[in-house]
Amino acid sequence: MTNFKQSKNPVWKALTRHAEVMNRPENHLKYLLESHDRVSKFSLKAAGIFYDFSRQRLDEKAMDLLLELAEDRRLKEQFSAMVHGEKMNTTENRPALHTAARNFSGHPVVVDGKDVMPEIRNVRNEIRQFVAQIHNEKITGSTGKPFRQVVVIGIGGSYLGTEFVANALYFLADKKIEIMFLSNVDIHNFGKIAAIIDVETTLWVVISKSYTTAETMANAHQVRTYIKDKGLDPAKHFLTVTSKGSPGDDPKNPVLASFHMFDFIGGRYSVTSAVGGVPLSLYLGYERFERFLKGAQEMDLHSQNAPDRENIPLVAALISIWNNNFLGYPAQAIIPYASPLSKLAPHIQQLSMESSGKLVTKDGDRLDDATGTIVFGEPGTNAQHSFFQLAHQGKPFPIDFIGVIHPHYNQYPHRSKGVTNHQELWANLIAQPAALATGKEDSNPAKSFSGNRPSSTLLLKELSPENIGRLLAFYEAKTVYEAFIWGINPFDQFGVELGKTLATDIRKQMAAKNRDENHSFDETDPIARFYLDTLFNNK
Amino acid sequence: MTNFKQSKNPVWKALTRHAEVMNRPENHLKYLLESHDRVSKFSLKAAGIFYDFSRQRLDEKAMDLLLELAEDRRLKEQFSAMVHGEKMNTTENRPALHTAARNFSGHPVVVDGKDVMPEIRNVRNEIRQFVAQIHNEKITGSTGKPFRQVVVIGIGGSYLGTEFVANALYFLADKKIEIMFLSNVDIHNFGKIAAIIDVETTLWVVISKSYTTAETMANAHQVRTYIKDKGLDPAKHFLTVTSKGSPGDDPKNPVLASFHMFDFIGGRYSVTSAVGGVPLSLYLGYERFERFLKGAQEMDLHSQNAPDRENIPLVAALISIWNNNFLGYPAQAIIPYASPLSKLAPHIQQLSMESSGKLVTKDGDRLDDATGTIVFGEPGTNAQHSFFQLAHQGKPFPIDFIGVIHPHYNQYPHRSKGVTNHQELWANLIAQPAALATGKEDSNPAKSFSGNRPSSTLLLKELSPENIGRLLAFYEAKTVYEAFIWGINPFDQFGVELGKTLATDIRKQMAAKNRDENHSFDETDPIARFYLDTLFNNK
Repeated sequence: MTNFKQSKNPVWKALTRHAEVMNRPENHLKYLLESHDRVSKFSLKAAGIFYDFSRQRLDEKAMDLLLELAEDRRLKEQFSAMVHGEKMNTTENRPALHTAARNFSGHPVVVDGKDVMPEIRNVRNEIRQFVAQIHNEKITGSTGKPFRQVVVIGIGGSYLGTEFVANALYFLADKKIEIMFLSNVDIHNFGKIAAIIDVETTLWVVISKSYTTAETMANAHQVRTYIKDKGLDPAKHFLTVTSKGSPGDDPKNPVLASFHMFDFIGGRYSVTSAVGGVPLSLYLGYERFERFLKGAQEMDLHSQNAPDRENIPLVAALISIWNNNFLGYPAQAIIPYASPLSKLAPHIQQLSMESSGKLVTKDGDRLDDATGTIVFGEPGTNAQHSFFQLAHQGKPFPIDFIGVIHPHYNQYPHRSKGVTNHQELWANLIAQPAALATGKEDSNPAKSFSGNRPSSTLLLKELSPENIGRLLAFYEAKTVYEAFIWGINPFDQFGVELGKTLATDIRKQMAAKNRDENHSFDETDPIARFYLDTLFNNK
Repeated sequence: MTNFKQSKNPVWKALTRHAEVMNRPENHLKYLLESHDRVSKFSLKAAGIFYDFSRQRLDEKAMDLLLELAEDRRLKEQFSAMVHGEKMNTTENRPALHTAARNFSGHPVVVDGKDVMPEIRNVRNEIRQFVAQIHNEKITGSTGKPFRQVVVIGIGGSYLGTEFVANALYFLADKKIEIMFLSNVDIHNFGKIAAIIDVETTLWVVISKSYTTAETMANAHQVRTYIKDKGLDPAKHFLTVTSKGSPGDDPKNPVLASFHMFDFIGGRYSVTSAVGGVPLSLYLGYERFERFLKGAQEMDLHSQNAPDRENIPLVAALISIWNNNFLGYPAQAIIPYASPLSKLAPHIQQLSMESSGKLVTKDGDRLDDATGTIVFGEPGTNAQHSFFQLAHQGKPFPIDFIGVIHPHYNQYPHRSKGVTNHQELWANLIAQPAALATGKEDSNPAKSFSGNRPSSTLLLKELSPENIGRLLAFYEAKTVYEAFIWGINPFDQFGVELGKTLATDIRKQMAAKNRDENHSFDETDPIARFYLDTLFNNK
């Protein structure tokens, strides 16, 4: 497992050679798709997800080689070690136990001799009981009014997953509670929220593992001042989700309730922990949050147990590596043909790019090439009218199309051109992967399509809490499988540290100037000085 | 101008050679930045924008060569031809006159012997007069209630620009009118809007040049049915923005008012026409829309007249080509440190990727390489907690940072760690480009930063209508300048046609099945049949 050198691995070398074969004109997707059993051979169905990779630039030999790589890299063994609490986050000497957050098996998960499951179950019970008291209005704001707005104060992994799930299931939000996100330290983010909420009926959920995240603390302090200025008691309007013993879990800073998160679940993998559990239970009800967890658990069990060849996230990870390292695509789009999934791409953008954007293996060896792929996306058909020109005729990139068979709104059966709006959406969902794959020659070169542009299609039966859990856990498992292939650590993020350090230096300069207007910025480098002067002189 | 072959052009070849020089270790950005006049030499200020490209991987020789390329490609001459109505959209034999939409010079712009300015002014006057009657409540919905929601029904260029501007200036929305966007044909998009509006006080603005866009028509028909079902008169709740004589401009389909758009302004360049003019004037007031136009005009005049070396969009386009074609970066991020600019990246994503993602020159010659860059982005500091791990330690991509000196909300001066939230935001805006450029060696390879990652920084004084116009026109001019360098047509989008054609075939199959449930899909290809069966059998 250790000291994996891509360039020296025989399967890797065989894949490199086979990619050259697949790049030949006779292996254009339009020819591969002529095979009548293409979709049955190159698709999988399990754990509530149908995964069609027939429009990927693969043949059986490529699949066989990729599966050989999976075996060589002992992928399922690594996944199993992760699920069982081994310290997969080697650089930080921690396990990576997001799967434990939705483990309802009753079996222990032991870390350093201690079963972590009881405390995970305790937190869930605390959430269930507390949220019930908010919904039945036993717990109210400081003026006795029931809570009607929940504002999550958190950034990155502390809100992106929750935002994705809340958007995906908004039509189940029947608790008379709105949800909003105060993530950015930009005062416009706070100002916009302050302008629309009723401070008496607003509950603020501060989410930070360390309770020291600069942006989150700045926003929490700003909100606390704001609540006090309005004559209310902040302690009656705040919840925290944070590590045991952090400043956010200190009785000296009283809050309505504090829920624990654990150092063995990283931010970008934390939506199934209290990080998502508290706000999503407030917004959708605890029962739906638990259904979401159970969907995720089903996908986890599939990811852990299904044979490599039938394992959807594992196969998806192999395809991602194939596209990235062997066919050379620099990016990956995620295009859900479902507006409620509009925040899936931003969430997976973080999950994938923060997990995979690395220079070194988990053993500290410099990689031949930095890893990771740029992930971006918008819902379809919108994306067709935005950047699909480039997808069809510019530099190609692979796409994950996502479809939902049953829409939530069945009461609008109006037809235009003989089809319902949902059918129109599907006409495009069916047409786009075909157009990208097959292309079309035209005597006018401006109207020619080279085709051979790869995509996968995922189908969900409907937008249920279970299916959103399965979709989430699919992308989480795919992400860790990719990392296991590369031999990198998908659970650390040292790449964000340098910017934080430099921002601290700049902040100190600003604070000094705030204290003493004669403070000069001469100690800083010329460009920083220029920007500091620009900001302060324009005051 | 014609038959430009990149690989045969001497300046292009010199740039290719110079890129090799810039790739040498001694030309790492950390060394380039040691020069004390770096920021004054590699920055520009004009038309309300400060543009700092000191952290791009350029030296004076690279700039000189790029400016030689600009001269060789006669960029300003092409821009001037565009502004004066020449048929720059060669494949569709049309001018590209988005600049005319904000031309207040009084000079004529002649197309085929006819001055187009009078009709542009007429449309603006019609918007001003009509919108005033909505705001003073002389025109109301069919039950006499004043309008309180405006829903734009349009997709791609018919809403992305408006969404960007409406978000950027939301704090000026004092007309008691909310704005929403019904872009996606996905029934969830309509269902979500239907659940929150009051049908009696909602005004729907259907935007489609041809009035045949499938998604827009499906949504407009759905809304019409919905309004009728509620017992109201759709004619009193609809506006259209469309071409003269289109089905949306036909008295047989009565609407409150119809505003014309012109075939010489393409969708992705149309926010300064009636496409943005109608909804933005309803939301913000006509006067603010005109201030926005005047900002755009100022940038247009700068783009047209400033010498190459001082021309911000032209220099930005040269840098983009340098990064794309010579340094080989596949993507470009746009990171505004201003939450109200959260929809800038999706708008520029369309503007840039649809304009530049091309396989052929405007003369129909196949390019050596497809053009275009993947554009994506989220506001900072959010992006730092999402995908900046990859920006710092994964495969690099250039970034446009955008800062705003004065925030709109000055009434929250609370300090955390000695600085206000706006200063905290700026501490990060200053730190990130520096960290990306300089990097930092560490004995722990996991904590090493290779640096040498390029970025630009744009500053705006505040989020005024004028500055949003300037920013928009900057990106528009940059996009067309890039195309002029490559010799492609940035105004057509034939790449979206094949998908449309295939969707039409699928739609016909669906309509046949709706008419006759015994209709079989045997005529379609096996994969399409599989998906059609999946959709219909799960009904």
